[in-house]
Amino acid sequence: MTSTNDDAVALAEALMACPSVTPATGDVFAALETMLLPLGFTVDRFVVGEAPDGPVENLLAWRTTGAGPHFAFAGHLDVVPPGTGWTSDPFVPVRRGDLLHGRGAVDMKGAIAAFVAALRQLPDDLPGTISLIITGDEEGPATYGTLALMDRMAAHGMRPDLCLVGEPTSSARLGDVVKIGRRGSVNMWIAVEGSQGHVAYPHLADNPIPRLVRILTAIEAEVLDEGTDWFQPSNIEITDLEVGNPAHNVIPGRASARISIRFNDRHSGESLIERIRAIAGPLGGAVTAKISGEAFLTQPGALSDLVRGAIREVTGVETELSTTGGTSDARFLSRLCPVVEFGLCNATMHKLDEAVAVEDLRDLARIYALVVERALRG
Amino acid sequence: MTSTNDDAVALAEALMACPSVTPATGDVFAALETMLLPLGFTVDRFVVGEAPDGPVENLLAWRTTGAGPHFAFAGHLDVVPPGTGWTSDPFVPVRRGDLLHGRGAVDMKGAIAAFVAALRQLPDDLPGTISLIITGDEEGPATYGTLALMDRMAAHGMRPDLCLVGEPTSSARLGDVVKIGRRGSVNMWIAVEGSQGHVAYPHLADNPIPRLVRILTAIEAEVLDEGTDWFQPSNIEITDLEVGNPAHNVIPGRASARISIRFNDRHSGESLIERIRAIAGPLGGAVTAKISGEAFLTQPGALSDLVRGAIREVTGVETELSTTGGTSDARFLSRLCPVVEFGLCNATMHKLDEAVAVEDLRDLARIYALVVERALRG
Ligand SMILES: [Zn+2]
Ligand SMILES: [Zn+2]
Repeated sequence: MTSTNDDAVALAEALMACPSVTPATGDVFAALETMLLPLGFTVDRFVVGEAPDGPVENLLAWRTTGAGPHFAFAGHLDVVPPGTGWTSDPFVPVRRGDLLHGRGAVDMKGAIAAFVAALRQLPDDLPGTISLIITGDEEGPATYGTLALMDRMAAHGMRPDLCLVGEPTSSARLGDVVKIGRRGSVNMWIAVEGSQGHVAYPHLADNPIPRLVRILTAIEAEVLDEGTDWFQPSNIEITDLEVGNPAHNVIPGRASARISIRFNDRHSGESLIERIRAIAGPLGGAVTAKISGEAFLTQPGALSDLVRGAIREVTGVETELSTTGGTSDARFLSRLCPVVEFGLCNATMHKLDEAVAVEDLRDLARIYALVVERALRG
Repeated sequence: MTSTNDDAVALAEALMACPSVTPATGDVFAALETMLLPLGFTVDRFVVGEAPDGPVENLLAWRTTGAGPHFAFAGHLDVVPPGTGWTSDPFVPVRRGDLLHGRGAVDMKGAIAAFVAALRQLPDDLPGTISLIITGDEEGPATYGTLALMDRMAAHGMRPDLCLVGEPTSSARLGDVVKIGRRGSVNMWIAVEGSQGHVAYPHLADNPIPRLVRILTAIEAEVLDEGTDWFQPSNIEITDLEVGNPAHNVIPGRASARISIRFNDRHSGESLIERIRAIAGPLGGAVTAKISGEAFLTQPGALSDLVRGAIREVTGVETELSTTGGTSDARFLSRLCPVVEFGLCNATMHKLDEAVAVEDLRDLARIYALVVERALRG
């Protein structure tokens, strides 16, 4: 199988050679399409959305071989800007020793190459449907990315039974961490109105700052939960304070703060907004909010066991199931079916000289192939 | 004495006709000098200081007639900018009905005119020294104003025994309020340093905002005093909060607040800085401060009785002794001798169509004359 496994490296190089700073367009999708068509996939490329969050280019591909489960790979072809200071051109993939360098090596063109390399390794007689849900906008606003792909899939009458997102979840060694959930995220703005005046005559003014301080003190005292079996405790951070009063002798008329909550599946964005409103409201604070993503958890079970087994078989590594870190598009896909996230080591993601071990690319393709094969055979 | 009393109105018009938006220079000082020289005063006009708070023009005048006490009038010839929207030119004094309109009418060219008119009314045989301490920068930074005049006076070997500052202290009627003290003022900046990080990984960051909130909560709980016989309670206002973090997902590395304290004579600026440091220090806050002025009190007694008696005799008004309001140059002069502040009605000071009742100008000159005469006769 050596030549087959080498595919992953060559495929990764092909994708990494197409510059695709978010939002990704054109060449990198054409490169992926060229890889999928010979494997019998139907490829639906489309552009959706308007400024400021669009337009966005996406790719949906699928192949059905008789009746059976539907297994979906999901990921993104856009990359974060490379920044300056790279040892070599970030969009000219280059091998130095055991590492393949280039923007997107681990986040996540390497994983998408491993999807394709895995598909090439699969036996011909697998029953069921395999799909790829690939967006050009995950690192950006993500308004017209995976959500638009889910709409497109529904329009084609498809819905996956299992989904694997190829984000770089591994930490020290390939396979050591698989994510089975993510915390949710909500930002809130708390504004307190008062009445401006002169510090020499405080009885003629109404300083909003002491009320904001009382609200923030109450919020700081709030314990949202103690964590769950799978999640760390939900956490509130006060991320900004703003008054903007340059005049030393003036009592300001308005004060505001911003908080950011990362929360587990004990809460929803709305429940937290109500909770903060219940604290701030009686103390005179008005709360506005933006939910970035709800928490989700794929209960450990068939899917995570399948992935752990494949990892153990290829690498010998024992996998930790985790829900830490930021948000990912898995928060959207989890509305459709059980989702796990598993991909390359994330040490160099978003960094200069981003790199993947070529051995990891080969192993990842093999693991993905085992996962799909076993998922479809039930 | 009718013709003598009319002097105050004509003299006020002469001073108000010289534009002198702070810092005052040239013509308005020349006009005052012209009024004082025929009265036998020595006039020392000088310019002092460099940018940004200078140069500033000042006028010191004195007349000694044998041995006796030294009584000083103090005030300023600069005015705040007129702004737009006046009924007539702010620097062309005009009478409409009983009122004389123009910038500086009450704050405080009218009072300086009343100083001169009072001097014209005095008997020739008064023993002692009379001086005028007149600055061109009271409404501005005041760095090179009254303080420089005090230095100049010391250089001439003079020090007053009693001082009357002609700021507009009257409220509803001429003479209803005389100030015998002023609160002090100090601004402080409280900065808390932390360590920036991502909200998804709070254990890798150190959010300074909760510590700042704890410091501000402790400061808000602080009772400086309950007031004194002559002063209202000292007061702390939080006047600004600043973090300046536009990134919703970032825990900031620094947070700061500004407070302003108006304090009575139970405190000094330094004692309050130490007190706030004692609160903020253990919670991680660094305090920097700027003292704008110390509190002062001229204990009610000979000087205030003298002024109240003269007011009662001329107007029939019973005077309230007060320490309210902002700061004035009396805070500097109080280092030399007992100081009271008494002048015209302040309803229109710093406002459009600033105006003084011509009757008040005449009465004020008469009151000032009685005060000086009785002060010098002991
Ligand atoms: Zn990614
Ligand atoms: Zn004034």
